Amino acid sequence: METIFTERHRLRNSKTELFGGQLVEPFERPSRAEYIIGRVREVDLGPVSEPDDYGMDPILAIHDADFIAFLQGAWSDWQSAGFEGEAMPTVWPARRMSQKIPTNIEGRLGYYALACETTISEGTWEAAYASAQVALTGAQRLNDGAKSVFSLCRPPGHHAAIDMYGGYCFVNNAAVAAQHLLDTGAKRIAILDVDFHHGNGTQDIFDARDDVLFISLHGDPMDAFPHFLGHADETGNGNGDGFTINYPMPPNTDFKTWREALQRALAQIADYAPDKLIISLGVDTFESDPISFFKLKSEDFTTYGADIATLNLPTLFVMEGGYDIAEISVNTINVLQGFESAS
Amino acid sequence: METIFTERHRLRNSKTELFGGQLVEPFERPSRAEYIIGRVREVDLGPVSEPDDYGMDPILAIHDADFIAFLQGAWSDWQSAGFEGEAMPTVWPARRMSQKIPTNIEGRLGYYALACETTISEGTWEAAYASAQVALTGAQRLNDGAKSVFSLCRPPGHHAAIDMYGGYCFVNNAAVAAQHLLDTGAKRIAILDVDFHHGNGTQDIFDARDDVLFISLHGDPMDAFPHFLGHADETGNGNGDGFTINYPMPPNTDFKTWREALQRALAQIADYAPDKLIISLGVDTFESDPISFFKLKSEDFTTYGADIATLNLPTLFVMEGGYDIAEISVNTINVLQGFESAS
Ligand SMILES: [Zn+2]
Ligand SMILES: [Zn+2]
Repeated sequence: METIFTERHRLRNSKTELFGGQLVEPFERPSRAEYIIGRVREVDLGPVSEPDDYGMDPILAIHDADFIAFLQGAWSDWQSAGFEGEAMPTVWPARRMSQKIPTNIEGRLGYYALACETTISEGTWEAAYASAQVALTGAQRLNDGAKSVFSLCRPPGHHAAIDMYGGYCFVNNAAVAAQHLLDTGAKRIAILDVDFHHGNGTQDIFDARDDVLFISLHGDPMDAFPHFLGHADETGNGNGDGFTINYPMPPNTDFKTWREALQRALAQIADYAPDKLIISLGVDTFESDPISFFKLKSEDFTTYGADIATLNLPTLFVMEGGYDIAEISVNTINVLQGFESAS
Repeated sequence: METIFTERHRLRNSKTELFGGQLVEPFERPSRAEYIIGRVREVDLGPVSEPDDYGMDPILAIHDADFIAFLQGAWSDWQSAGFEGEAMPTVWPARRMSQKIPTNIEGRLGYYALACETTISEGTWEAAYASAQVALTGAQRLNDGAKSVFSLCRPPGHHAAIDMYGGYCFVNNAAVAAQHLLDTGAKRIAILDVDFHHGNGTQDIFDARDDVLFISLHGDPMDAFPHFLGHADETGNGNGDGFTINYPMPPNTDFKTWREALQRALAQIADYAPDKLIISLGVDTFESDPISFFKLKSEDFTTYGADIATLNLPTLFVMEGGYDIAEISVNTINVLQGFESAS
């Protein structure tokens, strides 16, 4: 399997994350991608290629243009305001409040954020742009005939909504890739999100559309980030009714239960008969992930990679979360090797 | 003028505020009230009395019961979750997200917050409860015949909405006092909010009601906290249409401009002919306030205190913001003395 990767992910290297009422070293850090690319090379998964540059259009096909302009200027605007830390919102348009977009950078941060653990810092936009290009290049490889591709995206994307960032995500890489596939011949795309966290951004983007089936397996939002999307009764709206499927699961869910949800999801994808499949691949379902609560073991990742291969669809793996530094590389590559071994 | 005050405000003594991407010593700190009560005694403003205890009912007459239960348990729940810092939300129900209330404390913090600079810490609820009693006791003094009373509330209240806290506020003291006056004979109450920041919580609480006229003079939310309420086109809804009046003003507004807005507000209050008047008294309009941008000088506070007295209404002053430690006591007492000298 070919891996698409760029060292430009290192441009996203924030110093602080708000966690437990403290500013800590971010869980989403450059070493994550370095561990994974190291493992790709160690097991000789396949060639590693630089992304091509598809420009801004595919990003603007998914995200609100004013939101993207905000992301591009936020760090500069924040510095101009004279603040000493990294850019973080402190107030947002809460219930019954106005949705007018403030001019002040603190106000705009709150308007465009859905979470505040994630700072915006020097290079954040540039890395997010490069990460989207990694996803786009992987998608194009499927168009060019590849059976499967691994887009080693960083920063991740699945929490980024039409016009909001948060949860370490700025541009929704999987959504950008899906739209590219639709714009280049595909009629239907399925996105299966196996990250521990609900892919609220992806759901938001495709909520009212029937050309993308979005299925997510995740920690119940009553208990887990992002807390405010991912309930089982969210099934899409308008034309998209029935094309969003959520499998929220409780703390301590083990692989047996998780795999039952996966098998249902795979059957639903088979029924949908998409032209291509995108996996939002987070490995924070691992039993010792520091910020999650599922109980998958390393060998389970191999098993479910093989399960996904039974769909026999051209498949793009887009890297999302996974924060147990020592093990994410093994678990990620296990999924890819499990998939390849069963293909 | 009698002052109502309790040392229980000291129970609100959080260590951290999120400001400029850093955790700093809170601007809203116990010394604020100590400076002001010191000045009350220095100038012999009048007697200083402990509040009576009106219990929970007047608080629950304004705020959502589940929100109050959340405030009561938040610090304990946060500690039980094992976090090391003070309680702060990191994610909230943003645009197009679910309003289901999570079970997890991190989720509930996000549900019930409208801002995250304000931590919840040991004693926060107890101080907020005591602060509301200070406001209630002042309101009752008006019922008992006082012409004016100063409720030296801390923590402040005007940012606290029906079911949300933030901006250093937890219980809306002015709103609780207004409701007490309505429940004990008044037909109409006017609340004039002269704090630098828009009184979004008070507006939210009385948005659809015609028995409370809410008028706020404040920094334009396009430029100033709370950023998402306080625009001039917000005039109330339903029965409350016309009973919310906002005067947003731009950076560097001086006293001349501010006083013109005040004069219009006073004329509107006179037209409304309320039984009693509540002043949400913040002195962060001062030219050297560290987090605001109006340009009032100390003598201007005396002038506008006298302006308010021309209404000749029983008047309750409820303390809100003001963060320039060295000067807030002078400016606060200047308002009260200006009022008294013109009464
Ligand atoms: Zn995740
Ligand atoms: Zn204020």
